[in-house]
Amino acid sequence: MQVRRGFVAYSSAVAITEKALIAQVRRLARATTKESAAVLTGIGDDCAVLRLLARGGKPADTLVTTDFTLEGIHFRRDWHSAESVGHRCLARGLSDIAAMGGEPVAAFLSLALPRDLAQSWVGRFARSLISLAERHGVTLAGGDTAESPNGILADIIVLGRVAQGRALLRSGARPGDRIYVSGELGGSAAAVGQMRKKRKRKLNPQEYPRHFFPEPRIELGRILREKRLASAMIDTSDGLSTDLGHICEESGVGAEIEAELIPRARVGKPSREVDLQFALHGGEDYELLFTAPASRRIPSRMAGIPLRVMCPISVRRIPAMRDGMRLLAELLRRGREHFRK
Amino acid sequence: MQVRRGFVAYSSAVAITEKALIAQVRRLARATTKESAAVLTGIGDDCAVLRLLARGGKPADTLVTTDFTLEGIHFRRDWHSAESVGHRCLARGLSDIAAMGGEPVAAFLSLALPRDLAQSWVGRFARSLISLAERHGVTLAGGDTAESPNGILADIIVLGRVAQGRALLRSGARPGDRIYVSGELGGSAAAVGQMRKKRKRKLNPQEYPRHFFPEPRIELGRILREKRLASAMIDTSDGLSTDLGHICEESGVGAEIEAELIPRARVGKPSREVDLQFALHGGEDYELLFTAPASRRIPSRMAGIPLRVMCPISVRRIPAMRDGMRLLAELLRRGREHFRK
Repeated sequence: MQVRRGFVAYSSAVAITEKALIAQVRRLARATTKESAAVLTGIGDDCAVLRLLARGGKPADTLVTTDFTLEGIHFRRDWHSAESVGHRCLARGLSDIAAMGGEPVAAFLSLALPRDLAQSWVGRFARSLISLAERHGVTLAGGDTAESPNGILADIIVLGRVAQGRALLRSGARPGDRIYVSGELGGSAAAVGQMRKKRKRKLNPQEYPRHFFPEPRIELGRILREKRLASAMIDTSDGLSTDLGHICEESGVGAEIEAELIPRARVGKPSREVDLQFALHGGEDYELLFTAPASRRIPSRMAGIPLRVMCPISVRRIPAMRDGMRLLAELLRRGREHFRK
Repeated sequence: MQVRRGFVAYSSAVAITEKALIAQVRRLARATTKESAAVLTGIGDDCAVLRLLARGGKPADTLVTTDFTLEGIHFRRDWHSAESVGHRCLARGLSDIAAMGGEPVAAFLSLALPRDLAQSWVGRFARSLISLAERHGVTLAGGDTAESPNGILADIIVLGRVAQGRALLRSGARPGDRIYVSGELGGSAAAVGQMRKKRKRKLNPQEYPRHFFPEPRIELGRILREKRLASAMIDTSDGLSTDLGHICEESGVGAEIEAELIPRARVGKPSREVDLQFALHGGEDYELLFTAPASRRIPSRMAGIPLRVMCPISVRRIPAMRDGMRLLAELLRRGREHFRK
C-alpha cells in the first residue's frame, strides 16, 4: 500500500516520483509526531501495524472512520487555503472518533494530486494536517498516493480506541432523555453562504473559525463517555436536523427541540448571530450532539466547551420504531421553527 | 462518517440520496457477509467498532492498508467491467494484508460517484467487491460516500490482524537469504499492453485473469508466516524490480536474481509467455515476493500456488546500507536481463 507505482507531480515545474512524496510525508510525520507505542510499523511497508490497547494496557475496541475531502465538493481552492483544507480533512475524521467517546490513535491519508499542483500547496496542506494530528497525539501512519485525473482528492482514515464495549453509539437514546449540543451551530454553513454570495471575496478565517479550522471535540467526547453521562452521541457534520434524525432512527425514538434553545453561532465582523436555518440545517460544525437521562446532571460547560440543553421534554417513544427520520423530515417541511413528531 | 451530507446520483435518470446508497450497500453487505464477531458496529454510526483479537482470543496486532482506485488512473470504463473494477479495488487491499502474513477482517469503502453514473454499474461493482470480501470472510463495515466532480473515485481500507509481533515486514531480509515468488509475473502488465495497442478491443478477462480478477494470496501469506518460512515479504503490486527494490531498501541489503528463473505468465489465446520486460517491471500481479533463509526448505507449491526460487545466490550484504534502491535502478538501466548490485 504505502508505496505505489505511478507518480505525482507536486511542483509547478518539477515532476517528482511518488517515492519522493512518500519520503517527504514520512519526514514530516516523523519530525512532528511523538513516538507512539501503538504504531509499531508506520509508513514504509504493505500495511501499518498497530497494537491497540486501552489506557492501562487493557483490551480495547478499535474505532475506524473514513472521510473524503474532494476538491469542488468539500472545498474550493479559491475559498479555502491549503492550511484550511489540511486541517478540515483530518478534523472530519477526528470528530467521528470524538462522537464515539474514543481516543484517536493513528491516521492514514490517501492523497491523489493533479500533475500541475504547486509543491507549496502540498507542503502547507500536510503541515496543517500533521499539526492538528500532533495536538491530539495522533500518528500519521500510512496511506496511499496517486496521480489525480482531476482536482485534489483526499481520503482520511482515522483509527481510535475505546474501552471494550464502551463506545458511545447513536442507538442509545431512550424516551425521557434530554438533548444537548456543544458549542454553537450554523457558523460553518454561514461561511459557505457568505462565499456563495460574494464569489470573489475570501473570508477571514478568524471570523468563521468553525468553518475553516473546526476543533474536534475529542476531550469532551471522552469525558462524556468516561463519566457515563451520555446515552447516545453523534457529531454535527450533516447539520442538527439530519444528525438528530440519525440518533432518532438508530435509537427508534422521536425527538422534540425548542428553536429558542438552539445555540446559534456568532460570525463576521462585527459579529452577528446566524440565521436559525443555518443552525438547524447547516452541517460541518463538528460539535457533539448527545442525549442524556434527565437524572444526569450535565454541567453548562465541560472541557472548556459550553453545553446547551435544547429541550424541556426531549426524546420520546414513537409508535412505529425506526420511522424517526421520515417523521422528522415531514415535520421539518411543515414548520421548521418548532417541530414535533 | 457513515452518513454524509450531499447526495450521489446513481441512476441515469433518478438522483438518489446518499442515505439510500448507504442503505443499499448496507443491505448488500448484510445479505452476503457472514456475521463477524470482530465487527461490533458496522455501517450506521460515526465509526465502525471492531474487536480485533487473534485466533484463540489472544491479543493481536492490527494491520491497516488503504488503496485508491481512480477512474483514468487505475482503470478505464471502456477497458474494465464494473465487476473487474469492484474486484480489483478490494483485491489491492487484501493483497497488502496477505503480504504481511495477516488475516483480513473488515473493509471500508470510500466511494465518490459522478451524477450521471448508471445505477446498474454501482450494483455490479458492489456485488463483485462484496463477493470477494465474502470469500475471504471480510465484513464491509463502513466507509464514506460523496458526489464526485469527475469520474469514479474509490478508496478501499482493509483492516486485518496478525499474532502480536509476527507481521511479516519488508525489512527482514538477511544476507544469504533466497528470493521466491508465487505464481507468475507480467500477466497484468501484458493485458494493459494489449489494451493500449488495440484501443477498441475489449480483452477476454479469462485470457488475462491476473489483470481483471487477481486472487489475493491470503492463505499462502498466512502459511508462510505461521511456519516462519519467510524472512521478508511484499506483494508485487508495483512490479518485481520495484518491489524487490523495496525489500532491499527496507532490509539494507542488495539482491541478485536470474532472469531465466523469473516465472513468466502465459496470456492470450492461444496462450503465450509474456515478454521478460512485463515480468520484470509490470505491476499489479499481486503475487507474493519473499525471502527465506537458505536453510529453510520451501516447497514448490503451497496453498495450491506454485512457488519459484529466482536466484542461486540471492540477497547479499551491500556496503552502503539502504542504497539498495539506487543501485538497483542503476543496474537496471545498464542491463535488464541479469542485474547485479
